[in-house]
Amino acid sequence: MRVLVLNGPNLNLLGEREPGIYGSAGLPEIEATCATLSDELGVTLSFQQSNHEGALVDALHTARETQDGVIFNAGAYTHSSIALRDAISAISVPVIELHLSNTHAREEIRHRSLIAPVALGVIAGFGAQGYLLAIRAMVAHLEAEAAAA
Amino acid sequence: MRVLVLNGPNLNLLGEREPGIYGSAGLPEIEATCATLSDELGVTLSFQQSNHEGALVDALHTARETQDGVIFNAGAYTHSSIALRDAISAISVPVIELHLSNTHAREEIRHRSLIAPVALGVIAGFGAQGYLLAIRAMVAHLEAEAAAA
Amino acid sequence: MRVLVLNGPNLNLLGEREPGIYGSAGLPEIEATCATLSDELGVTLSFQQSNHEGALVDALHTARETQDGVIFNAGAYTHSSIALRDAISAISVPVIELHLSNTHAREEIRHRSLIAPVALGVIAGFGAQGYLLAIRAMVAHLEAEAAAA
Amino acid sequence: MRVLVLNGPNLNLLGEREPGIYGSAGLPEIEATCATLSDELGVTLSFQQSNHEGALVDALHTARETQDGVIFNAGAYTHSSIALRDAISAISVPVIELHLSNTHAREEIRHRSLIAPVALGVIAGFGAQGYLLAIRAMVAHLEAEAAAA
Amino acid sequence: MRVLVLNGPNLNLLGEREPGIYGSAGLPEIEATCATLSDELGVTLSFQQSNHEGALVDALHTARETQDGVIFNAGAYTHSSIALRDAISAISVPVIELHLSNTHAREEIRHRSLIAPVALGVIAGFGAQGYLLAIRAMVAHLEAEAAAA
Amino acid sequence: MRVLVLNGPNLNLLGEREPGIYGSAGLPEIEATCATLSDELGVTLSFQQSNHEGALVDALHTARETQDGVIFNAGAYTHSSIALRDAISAISVPVIELHLSNTHAREEIRHRSLIAPVALGVIAGFGAQGYLLAIRAMVAHLEAEAAAA
Amino acid sequence: MRVLVLNGPNLNLLGEREPGIYGSAGLPEIEATCATLSDELGVTLSFQQSNHEGALVDALHTARETQDGVIFNAGAYTHSSIALRDAISAISVPVIELHLSNTHAREEIRHRSLIAPVALGVIAGFGAQGYLLAIRAMVAHLEAEAAAA
Amino acid sequence: MRVLVLNGPNLNLLGEREPGIYGSAGLPEIEATCATLSDELGVTLSFQQSNHEGALVDALHTARETQDGVIFNAGAYTHSSIALRDAISAISVPVIELHLSNTHAREEIRHRSLIAPVALGVIAGFGAQGYLLAIRAMVAHLEAEAAAA
Amino acid sequence: MRVLVLNGPNLNLLGEREPGIYGSAGLPEIEATCATLSDELGVTLSFQQSNHEGALVDALHTARETQDGVIFNAGAYTHSSIALRDAISAISVPVIELHLSNTHAREEIRHRSLIAPVALGVIAGFGAQGYLLAIRAMVAHLEAEAAAA
Amino acid sequence: MRVLVLNGPNLNLLGEREPGIYGSAGLPEIEATCATLSDELGVTLSFQQSNHEGALVDALHTARETQDGVIFNAGAYTHSSIALRDAISAISVPVIELHLSNTHAREEIRHRSLIAPVALGVIAGFGAQGYLLAIRAMVAHLEAEAAAA
Amino acid sequence: MRVLVLNGPNLNLLGEREPGIYGSAGLPEIEATCATLSDELGVTLSFQQSNHEGALVDALHTARETQDGVIFNAGAYTHSSIALRDAISAISVPVIELHLSNTHAREEIRHRSLIAPVALGVIAGFGAQGYLLAIRAMVAHLEAEAAAA
Amino acid sequence: MRVLVLNGPNLNLLGEREPGIYGSAGLPEIEATCATLSDELGVTLSFQQSNHEGALVDALHTARETQDGVIFNAGAYTHSSIALRDAISAISVPVIELHLSNTHAREEIRHRSLIAPVALGVIAGFGAQGYLLAIRAMVAHLEAEAAAA
Repeated sequence: MRVLVLNGPNLNLLGEREPGIYGSAGLPEIEATCATLSDELGVTLSFQQSNHEGALVDALHTARETQDGVIFNAGAYTHSSIALRDAISAISVPVIELHLSNTHAREEIRHRSLIAPVALGVIAGFGAQGYLLAIRAMVAHLEAEAAAA
Repeated sequence: MRVLVLNGPNLNLLGEREPGIYGSAGLPEIEATCATLSDELGVTLSFQQSNHEGALVDALHTARETQDGVIFNAGAYTHSSIALRDAISAISVPVIELHLSNTHAREEIRHRSLIAPVALGVIAGFGAQGYLLAIRAMVAHLEAEAAAA
Repeated sequence: MRVLVLNGPNLNLLGEREPGIYGSAGLPEIEATCATLSDELGVTLSFQQSNHEGALVDALHTARETQDGVIFNAGAYTHSSIALRDAISAISVPVIELHLSNTHAREEIRHRSLIAPVALGVIAGFGAQGYLLAIRAMVAHLEAEAAAA
Repeated sequence: MRVLVLNGPNLNLLGEREPGIYGSAGLPEIEATCATLSDELGVTLSFQQSNHEGALVDALHTARETQDGVIFNAGAYTHSSIALRDAISAISVPVIELHLSNTHAREEIRHRSLIAPVALGVIAGFGAQGYLLAIRAMVAHLEAEAAAA
Repeated sequence: MRVLVLNGPNLNLLGEREPGIYGSAGLPEIEATCATLSDELGVTLSFQQSNHEGALVDALHTARETQDGVIFNAGAYTHSSIALRDAISAISVPVIELHLSNTHAREEIRHRSLIAPVALGVIAGFGAQGYLLAIRAMVAHLEAEAAAA
Repeated sequence: MRVLVLNGPNLNLLGEREPGIYGSAGLPEIEATCATLSDELGVTLSFQQSNHEGALVDALHTARETQDGVIFNAGAYTHSSIALRDAISAISVPVIELHLSNTHAREEIRHRSLIAPVALGVIAGFGAQGYLLAIRAMVAHLEAEAAAA
Repeated sequence: MRVLVLNGPNLNLLGEREPGIYGSAGLPEIEATCATLSDELGVTLSFQQSNHEGALVDALHTARETQDGVIFNAGAYTHSSIALRDAISAISVPVIELHLSNTHAREEIRHRSLIAPVALGVIAGFGAQGYLLAIRAMVAHLEAEAAAA
Repeated sequence: MRVLVLNGPNLNLLGEREPGIYGSAGLPEIEATCATLSDELGVTLSFQQSNHEGALVDALHTARETQDGVIFNAGAYTHSSIALRDAISAISVPVIELHLSNTHAREEIRHRSLIAPVALGVIAGFGAQGYLLAIRAMVAHLEAEAAAA
Repeated sequence: MRVLVLNGPNLNLLGEREPGIYGSAGLPEIEATCATLSDELGVTLSFQQSNHEGALVDALHTARETQDGVIFNAGAYTHSSIALRDAISAISVPVIELHLSNTHAREEIRHRSLIAPVALGVIAGFGAQGYLLAIRAMVAHLEAEAAAA
Repeated sequence: MRVLVLNGPNLNLLGEREPGIYGSAGLPEIEATCATLSDELGVTLSFQQSNHEGALVDALHTARETQDGVIFNAGAYTHSSIALRDAISAISVPVIELHLSNTHAREEIRHRSLIAPVALGVIAGFGAQGYLLAIRAMVAHLEAEAAAA
Repeated sequence: MRVLVLNGPNLNLLGEREPGIYGSAGLPEIEATCATLSDELGVTLSFQQSNHEGALVDALHTARETQDGVIFNAGAYTHSSIALRDAISAISVPVIELHLSNTHAREEIRHRSLIAPVALGVIAGFGAQGYLLAIRAMVAHLEAEAAAA
Repeated sequence: MRVLVLNGPNLNLLGEREPGIYGSAGLPEIEATCATLSDELGVTLSFQQSNHEGALVDALHTARETQDGVIFNAGAYTHSSIALRDAISAISVPVIELHLSNTHAREEIRHRSLIAPVALGVIAGFGAQGYLLAIRAMVAHLEAEAAAA
């Protein structure tokens, strides 16, 4: 089982950027915790981050043939990118939308997700812990799919 | 650690009602699966369901002194009840908003949550599996709070 | 053929409340007229009224196994209750939406019906006479369904 | 008692046009069924259909002196014609708004009726059966008016 | 100086239709009063009325070569007809928009005029008297244009 | 003079719930202060509280024959309940809308009151003191009405 | 017959200000032309101009006892002043709303008039000529009122 | 304790202007009644009225050093004046917003108050009686503040 | 292969009407150019123009049995006519929406097409040349359909 | 080079009013700093402040003949005054819009400027320093204009 | 004659991605068909595709000096990119907007094009065939321009 | 003192692109003028331009450790990029928003800035001169900060 954890704009600053909103754990730390869980669950995890919308589109295209699932924190692009929505629709790999903060408790421009309607599901507001929940959710989903096949 | 799983309107019909959207597992089945996980994690789980908005307000008030956390699937009231939002604000117990379906992929009247801005976080779209994720999320949150205290 | 006539909030005051809008016939009087017609058409009619949204949800759930059709005057809940809409979707029994007054000729808050999209049809503006029309409409519908089966 | 059944744009194609939405009965068939009922109730029924907004305005003007009531399926003009609304206001003959399909369950452009606020009432979603319900509703209304005079 | 007084839908009922809003003078009466003033001012007046949007478009097209100005009471089409707006744009003859009632003091659907942006000016709320004001306004405008040429 | 003080959802938690917004006085304390004033003014005061919208509709219906006035803090239902608005319209007893906090200084979802258009008047933002002001306002209103009769 | 011609903000610059929109005639010139017509019609005309909203409210209050009618070009205040609307409602003197330019053919912020709903009628787009039309409209209105009395 | 009662546009016409909405008491009469109550409560009351928005801003600025509280009926400026809102924010004196009529039961343009978010509280719909309620509310507030200091 | 070129309101004035927007070619000229191309491609072309919405509905109805495709320039009705939209839905003949000008670069009222959602495709902004492109597009579409059959 | 620094409502309270938003410098202090810079740049500076919209209109009218440029902090009138916008359009003197605070970072009612579309440019968010930037911007603009003449 | 065919985000997946919407032809196939037509018409065609908004802006900038026309399928960026709109405005090369699917028949987020107002014209809904139509349209446009020069 | 001047999409075409809106100075010329002023003020200036949103996010991240302030002309991304807004929030370096043109005097899509709420201030409409004003504003701000530290 191969799963890509894809992070979007500004997430490279995690831990240093507005810790009151996003928590104090940096991306490497989060990746380490994820690795521990994925080992336990027998999942091969990859990590990718980019501030470029086009690069994220490219990463989703690549995932189409190399991954079984994608956990995607699209950051600010969540609310404005139809291109990312189209990329998710274009690939058959299931995608889970993830947010560190509870976006509905923030400014109104963060209330609409263009990605959610084509995602498998949404997890938001649990900080770094959310990545672990998303891995479990993805594993459960892929196992259910495999069992049904 | 005491956690209430609170289900709102029409969720008593789970398993029989529109299985294409809500899945084929009934509420008792879901509760059984939850019990297995809660035992494993050392959580005391209670279950409550009502089709009455006022009864759900009452349940949240009671939880204020008897529970450490609430996992709340408010169903259709999610989108119209300011009273439930106020009840969550009024109690100091953390509340996780849960949906079986991915509400953002459905009709527009289900896109706005009045509860999300006062919830700890949101989990949506993972079917019955979502309850298990929510239990893990609540445990992780309460442990982190306890560690910080 | 079993049909439930379900009345929502404030309809218990019929005949006494704003007769200019709702007419001078009380609920018992309307029920009597309905009974005469249902006898003639061979329909078993039941009547229920509640001011509680949750109780109306419950009534629809019960109708799921005990009725062949529901004539539903949801009163003010027509315009705000997604829970009642979901309850109608959740049961396979056909539901006719009924209003005594012509809701489109009143305040703007009464122009949108959350129930209409999941109802079989709508009858509005004919006062107490509307109940008789709805019974005929339901009978014709159920007979057509039976003929097609 | 003289009643005009007035049909608007595209209703001449009834039976051939999108039968999934509008049913398989053609206009002549519907008129024949209406005639049977009107004979039984002692109503003199006339029928008129036009795809021209102006011709429908003219028909309403004529009805002003030749009819006691109008049953009006304005089709698509329901949602855009203020001229038809004004024509209904301009004549003292009561008008019942009729739709074959449940317009509220279709595209949003069909949710607003410009005619409803000046109509006696609305019947929608019962297919060809709706014409019979409308005739009964009109007769009951005219008899009540006569009794009150 | 040749001026067309063009009246739109439902204005043939003037005098009989809702006199509280539109006054008790019929169209022939208004035309007679207009004729007296136009004789005095040396204007050749023609009158035309139609309930058909297309016929009004045709009338404007014809006016393009036969009239020096048009006084246009477009009635309900004022608020919905882009075709009439385009027809006014398409001809070089100046058009004055006229209303018997003060449209801004009525329902909100009568507040937006699609014609006003391409009209010379607007006169509204003065009843039959408005036609006389419009004739004077048109004469003054055409004389000023002639003087400037 | 009989006056009902009716309190809606979450007001049972008064004093304990968000004291920064709602003040530190509990409901029993407020009722005691009200009783002192009502004794002084010769008013018979009753108190009722419910978290259930339907129960509040019921209470208003009952007040129709047992009370001369109602002071109503509808809490969150103020902004969403057309059923309560209809209940107030349905009874002839005057109703004063009351809020502890200044709802206009809070979130936008609290800016629209569905009840205000059918209430006698509104008092908001004066905390527990508002109940005393409302009692005085009701007494003055009823005395003026009596004087005018 | 006493009529006040009341001009609002920036109209003192008439003739010098944006002549492409407002024409090249200054206020004194317009007043002179108005005086000629008013002499002919036996009307006593007064003129007042102010850039201050409050001063215009005061002027309307004074007109209440000293004038039979007001011709009011409220300029930019037309679109924002509820105080002027209230002042017009508060006096029993009829008010005609006047604009030099065709406000509906300009920016959207000039499309809504807060004054029109309480004015007798509207004349817009005829430049300085509009004042003469308004005087005639006012005279005709007052004569009709006198004749009816 | 010094309190200013500040009245805005058109309130000088009170008693004469639309008595159906605003009551038949004139401003002097209201001031006399207020004086009686303020004597009783030991409050030094001043009165000011202006139709000029700027003059009301000036009055609030002056109140900053000469008054302990302001009771402000801003009339129509309530709904359009950000300048008055800023003036209230700029001074530390508490301001109570007052309306004679129940503004929420009137036209939609009167539903939004720009002043309410910075006011202490709102009293609306009790006619002249509202001034007395506001004086009591202000006294109670200032006494509570003094007690807390 | 039989194709109807159907032109709506004001298109009879082509060449004379606002040539800056619509070009200097008249309808006969355009039809001649189309005929040349249709001869070359073996298409039987018919032409029809009307300013009447109803006549265009009729023409579409007729095309249902006599044409293989329709190229439709609905002019101003594009933006307001649900009747034309319904007529297109009602017939099984493919319809291409055509505009001479680039409607999206003009006034906002021309940005929404009610016809586009039921059309095969849209060609806009290429002037008279657009008719030739539409013929080619229709031929390619019909050939593809035939090949697939 | 003559430049007017024009300040609108509530700016007389500068330094005392909400220093967290507007800074602690008073108007006289700001004027002194401006004078130093204007001396250095050879500019003749005048200062004017008013809380009255009409007085600001008057000041702009006067500036038309006495000034080469205006630096205008219209305060709250920025967001509501079409009269000030018209006054700026009516004079040929260039006007720079200035705000002490960053209006876009405050309440939504401060996001729209009615003045900006007719201003030369906008400077916002730099506190008292903004006045110095505006003087430099005006000088550079006037010198560029002079050089181009 | 040099023409660039520029394709935006996700179009590299053509043929594999949602064939029900976008057709089964891949980009290389489409390019081959285009090449055949361009050879026939004597056009030098280049092809470029990128998922990066910035790279598309760069491509348009380069086209400014190297191409005579651009056929641009901006994909999802059509609906969100003002930068691409500005790039088109910034270059003098004509640009045709192209879509494979009929965007108006899809989700509402695809109904507004930010590019259309600055494009020469729009072709949408004809699948791969649309590229050939666009080449013909561009050739006709450039020839007409050359003829007019 | 180190300041980055960061330019966004299409600004590389400055001087060549729509000079009527953006002026005739190219980016190198502007940079030269800036360099002269920065030398005079003792500021170390760097320049960067990109058409790629992601590259601008990267540049802001880098600035976080290498610059004391950023002057940012985000071009079209101003109105659509939440990612750039987040990047500005994520770094502690103050950012001044700059526009060559007065964006409020242009199309409505340029009226909302997503960046302004997190910027220090805004300068718009002064052409190339704006860069010099921004440098002075930044220097003044940094000196004030240093003085306060």
